[in-house]
Amino acid sequence: MTQLEVIGTLDHLQRIAKSLLPRDIVDFIDGGAGAEHTLRANERDFQDLIILPRVLRDVAQVDLSTTVLGTRIDLPVLVAPSGSHRLAHPEGELATARGAARTGTCYVISTSSSYPMEEIAAASHGPKWFQLYCYRDRAITRSLIERANVLEFQALCVTVDTPRVGRKDRDLRNKFRFPEHVRWRNFDDSGLEVAPAGDVAAYIASQWDPSVTWHDIEWIRSLTDLPIVLKGILHPDDAELAVGSGVAGVIVSNHGSRNLDGVSSSIRALGAIVERVDGRVEVYCDGGIRRGTDVFKALSLGARAVLIGRPCFWGLAVSGADGVARCFEILRDELYAAMTLAGITRVSEIDDRATSWRPY
Amino acid sequence: MTQLEVIGTLDHLQRIAKSLLPRDIVDFIDGGAGAEHTLRANERDFQDLIILPRVLRDVAQVDLSTTVLGTRIDLPVLVAPSGSHRLAHPEGELATARGAARTGTCYVISTSSSYPMEEIAAASHGPKWFQLYCYRDRAITRSLIERANVLEFQALCVTVDTPRVGRKDRDLRNKFRFPEHVRWRNFDDSGLEVAPAGDVAAYIASQWDPSVTWHDIEWIRSLTDLPIVLKGILHPDDAELAVGSGVAGVIVSNHGSRNLDGVSSSIRALGAIVERVDGRVEVYCDGGIRRGTDVFKALSLGARAVLIGRPCFWGLAVSGADGVARCFEILRDELYAAMTLAGITRVSEIDDRATSWRPY
Amino acid sequence: MTQLEVIGTLDHLQRIAKSLLPRDIVDFIDGGAGAEHTLRANERDFQDLIILPRVLRDVAQVDLSTTVLGTRIDLPVLVAPSGSHRLAHPEGELATARGAARTGTCYVISTSSSYPMEEIAAASHGPKWFQLYCYRDRAITRSLIERANVLEFQALCVTVDTPRVGRKDRDLRNKFRFPEHVRWRNFDDSGLEVAPAGDVAAYIASQWDPSVTWHDIEWIRSLTDLPIVLKGILHPDDAELAVGSGVAGVIVSNHGSRNLDGVSSSIRALGAIVERVDGRVEVYCDGGIRRGTDVFKALSLGARAVLIGRPCFWGLAVSGADGVARCFEILRDELYAAMTLAGITRVSEIDDRATSWRPY
Amino acid sequence: MTQLEVIGTLDHLQRIAKSLLPRDIVDFIDGGAGAEHTLRANERDFQDLIILPRVLRDVAQVDLSTTVLGTRIDLPVLVAPSGSHRLAHPEGELATARGAARTGTCYVISTSSSYPMEEIAAASHGPKWFQLYCYRDRAITRSLIERANVLEFQALCVTVDTPRVGRKDRDLRNKFRFPEHVRWRNFDDSGLEVAPAGDVAAYIASQWDPSVTWHDIEWIRSLTDLPIVLKGILHPDDAELAVGSGVAGVIVSNHGSRNLDGVSSSIRALGAIVERVDGRVEVYCDGGIRRGTDVFKALSLGARAVLIGRPCFWGLAVSGADGVARCFEILRDELYAAMTLAGITRVSEIDDRATSWRPY
Repeated sequence: MTQLEVIGTLDHLQRIAKSLLPRDIVDFIDGGAGAEHTLRANERDFQDLIILPRVLRDVAQVDLSTTVLGTRIDLPVLVAPSGSHRLAHPEGELATARGAARTGTCYVISTSSSYPMEEIAAASHGPKWFQLYCYRDRAITRSLIERANVLEFQALCVTVDTPRVGRKDRDLRNKFRFPEHVRWRNFDDSGLEVAPAGDVAAYIASQWDPSVTWHDIEWIRSLTDLPIVLKGILHPDDAELAVGSGVAGVIVSNHGSRNLDGVSSSIRALGAIVERVDGRVEVYCDGGIRRGTDVFKALSLGARAVLIGRPCFWGLAVSGADGVARCFEILRDELYAAMTLAGITRVSEIDDRATSWRPY
Repeated sequence: MTQLEVIGTLDHLQRIAKSLLPRDIVDFIDGGAGAEHTLRANERDFQDLIILPRVLRDVAQVDLSTTVLGTRIDLPVLVAPSGSHRLAHPEGELATARGAARTGTCYVISTSSSYPMEEIAAASHGPKWFQLYCYRDRAITRSLIERANVLEFQALCVTVDTPRVGRKDRDLRNKFRFPEHVRWRNFDDSGLEVAPAGDVAAYIASQWDPSVTWHDIEWIRSLTDLPIVLKGILHPDDAELAVGSGVAGVIVSNHGSRNLDGVSSSIRALGAIVERVDGRVEVYCDGGIRRGTDVFKALSLGARAVLIGRPCFWGLAVSGADGVARCFEILRDELYAAMTLAGITRVSEIDDRATSWRPY
Repeated sequence: MTQLEVIGTLDHLQRIAKSLLPRDIVDFIDGGAGAEHTLRANERDFQDLIILPRVLRDVAQVDLSTTVLGTRIDLPVLVAPSGSHRLAHPEGELATARGAARTGTCYVISTSSSYPMEEIAAASHGPKWFQLYCYRDRAITRSLIERANVLEFQALCVTVDTPRVGRKDRDLRNKFRFPEHVRWRNFDDSGLEVAPAGDVAAYIASQWDPSVTWHDIEWIRSLTDLPIVLKGILHPDDAELAVGSGVAGVIVSNHGSRNLDGVSSSIRALGAIVERVDGRVEVYCDGGIRRGTDVFKALSLGARAVLIGRPCFWGLAVSGADGVARCFEILRDELYAAMTLAGITRVSEIDDRATSWRPY
Repeated sequence: MTQLEVIGTLDHLQRIAKSLLPRDIVDFIDGGAGAEHTLRANERDFQDLIILPRVLRDVAQVDLSTTVLGTRIDLPVLVAPSGSHRLAHPEGELATARGAARTGTCYVISTSSSYPMEEIAAASHGPKWFQLYCYRDRAITRSLIERANVLEFQALCVTVDTPRVGRKDRDLRNKFRFPEHVRWRNFDDSGLEVAPAGDVAAYIASQWDPSVTWHDIEWIRSLTDLPIVLKGILHPDDAELAVGSGVAGVIVSNHGSRNLDGVSSSIRALGAIVERVDGRVEVYCDGGIRRGTDVFKALSLGARAVLIGRPCFWGLAVSGADGVARCFEILRDELYAAMTLAGITRVSEIDDRATSWRPY
């Protein structure tokens, strides 16, 4: 698709993707838990944070690069872990990996990927993390971690906010089922039923462990030397516990509002957690990032970087790896513009003086 | 209707019910007083209360059961008293009683039921309260209480917020009249005109007593050993008076916004009353509960349980007792998901640390 | 029109009136200054004031009567002064006077009435005030006052907020002109051009005096023994000056938002003025009153009574004197319901404990 | 067009202009950066500022005139600098100059004008400022300043908020290109490509200097004796630096929200800057001014005058110089009405007692 460069916003990309995908898959990707109040808040609450630009600063050179857990990336936006990329494109996670690498960022591979992590690892040279769901069968869990060790990913990202799946109204109404060809391929050799086709919620209820606690984080730490990032923290007290548990980072997230409606938007939850963590570990944020100005705002509250989930599906649907790359190009160009126009030349300089909650 | 299980939300149930019932009956059931500002606030104000989930807690076992006035129920949601269930289904209150019992909860039978309380009591083995309107003719009032005594209900629920009926715009516009077949059957032997057909407001104005005061609560107490719950408290000072009057509980309620538009939503009124009552009696809440997360939020502010009114009519209209049961199943499943995802395993642990008013 | 009693709200009355009147006259009556932000706020801001009902009070007898400047009226709602009632009905102010008297309230006749004040005075036995605009020609002004003296009205209401007419977008767009048959009949013998047909704004600019100050209020006082009420106060400092000027009352008003868009709604302005006046004179309020609950709320902030303007035009358009009476019957019934359901039996008991600004 | 006088609001003027211009040009003129949140806030936030009118003041004589940098103008509204007026009318800036002069106000000529500044200067006798963008080629920049010196404009207005152009969604979607006939004519003799036809953003990126700092302001000051006004200040700290740099004024502006979405509306930013500047230089404001009441509100917060941009394009599109004049007549008439009805007779008397932020 040679016209990708005329798509100038993620909103535009989403509109095209919606016209290309089946309705029930659009609903699965874009939908949220319950009445979708938090889903909407994830995007809307960014509007309450005002950017305070400065003028007459030399902005001839603007540098978007940063590091995450020591790994250099070209812009402070990562691919959020999300499963089943083949829902949007036959090349699935392989395309995502290539698109992410082409734009110089890090890709967080999901436990529920529709290609095996080894194939995804081989698909590009870009930095990668592996995201872990803890299975009731600890042998399976251990095996996933060991494979991640072997593949020398840059980090292990443990999702802590999903003892069960959320109730997503749209999926209930659609009686959504995964297409047969979409399988979770990290379990090809596990003896597990490898596909969630049929009832995903039932599959997950039977496989994922709802009894995971902080002790399991210790156990996971004992199995790897990779730095660990906990994904799904919304409460400052849990951030404190995370720091105490020896992890390297936390991701402030409500799981794209796919789990529990009524919780805080991630941008509203971010500040108190950054304050509590106080620089002891890296803090990330995902949920509702649709603009370069959203990236700017999250960084101003103390996020080291942000992650995007749904937009990668839109990019995949529109143009595979090229579409994924386009997502990051758009955010890169928008963030570049935002920094230039705010008088800031390095991401490390985007701090709490750069924004203010409305009314200010 | 074998498809009931695909109805995953009360909103969905309502849409179907609206398509099945005559328009003027939909308006009577769903409408509110005046311009319906409070009606909308009853639902909307829940959005201002943010859930604060905790992670990495063992939520393998989640228990929704609780007690109300010492009676165990399977989930903290009761059938709110409401009259004339035959408006929605020929089996009326009999179906409601069976649906409630099947899901293990308590049914508050209305004075204005369209079956006699004795028949309703016999329709199921579930726990039941009897709701009382005080009639000008105290012999009638006394008789109602005595029948409730004989039937050994678990409590007597006295509605205190209805010295007259409210002005409901939709009913005025529709010139709403009860269908002939819907009669208030608790008065079959009373010598009273047994049906409000014709003008309900005029009937009520002639029969219900607008001069009831706290002295009458004393008189009612003298007639029964059942614990008494006062329904319709919105002001903390009235909650204080209720505690002083020796009752066992209060229901924070604006009568489903059917009485006076412009009063507080019940969720906004709840906190101050819980604070004033300070554990001396049980506090309940109704009005605008449409989601398991709404139940969660009301409990976090100190409600022992909540009550739902209109959804039972929707369930009745769609599928009689099965539809009523479906209401409670939906809320049960949603509350179960909410507790699991918030890291809470027992309803008694849902306290004020679990939520915060927006912006927090 | 025998169906008047099925019209249960002023909103309903307005919808019918809009269907009966020419579009440009609807716009003239219902329109406001500028972008109509204040017009909408006049109604909407009432929603921010929450009623706090009390229960278990004996409300068998509810009394809506009160006094205004010592005159007893049956409900605390007056006819606001407004000109040219023949725009809505051939009988114009004569019908208004009869409708107001039939419902036991007071009618404030406008300087710009389309019947002479003498004919209006003779049309009913109800209490009446005369509203005065100060003309550049003081002989005309003096003559108006002297005629009011002769007719022994209960008060003289001097409008102080209109040194010029406002810019009403709708009238500009419609190039609104008064119909030829609508003339301001208080000037039949004045030598003045008696009709504003042609350009009302130009007529007013040439006749009304923009240089009126507090000295003119002194002069007006010297010409009459009637109690004087100043209409159009929004600032507490002006309320203080009013008290100092020896008048008997003030009306908190933004002229139905017909003068200057962007000023406060009247309900938002009321409280500070009541506080400043501190009981030294009577305080009234108009603007946006559409419900009995609005009357209740204004009284709770300290208004002695309220006035309604546009609804009288709607009533006139629908059914002349009967329609005007219907306006007041609706508000009476709604206020009666509101007081009963709030546990209040006399208008003097509606005080600041009865409401609270949201969120409370 | 003899009907101009029936256009009574800028909104009306805009509607007609939209019907006359090509869609992509409408989008270029009216569009804003990003999701246009700030664009909407620029207009909407005025609604949060309430006017506090006073009554019974002699307003027979109301004077709208004021001075800007010592130059008398007939009303406190200037033509904001904006380029390429030939987009809206063949006579472009020549018509704008004539319309502005006819209504007695000052015209700020843009660097990017579609007629040379010399021709514009000759088109009318009204006061004029020249607005400067700093080119990478300092010889070009110096030449622009020297020509402004020769033409004896009243001030040099240096735009400081545009190190690059903003990302305007609508223009990206339209692939907007300037029509061939619209050229930036101040560079006819510069050796520069004289037209931005093709890609404006690329042209600007290659020509305008993103490394301009406060040192360049010093350099510019060294080249002229004209008073300098810095346009595009949103942060009080930058206002402080501006005062220290020796300029004569600052314009609080977000560039009509054409640069960076998510920044404050200008009316919300104004107060803190006025407070910081504390009278040391003149403070102006642009962005979202659509009503005389908006002018009134900006002045109440301390603006000496305001500037309007887009409305001049609407006026040009509808009727050339006459249309531009109509813009200022509308605002003049609306401001006149606002001052009269607020009890204020001179613009210098519009101070912070005249307004209050909602709720007040």
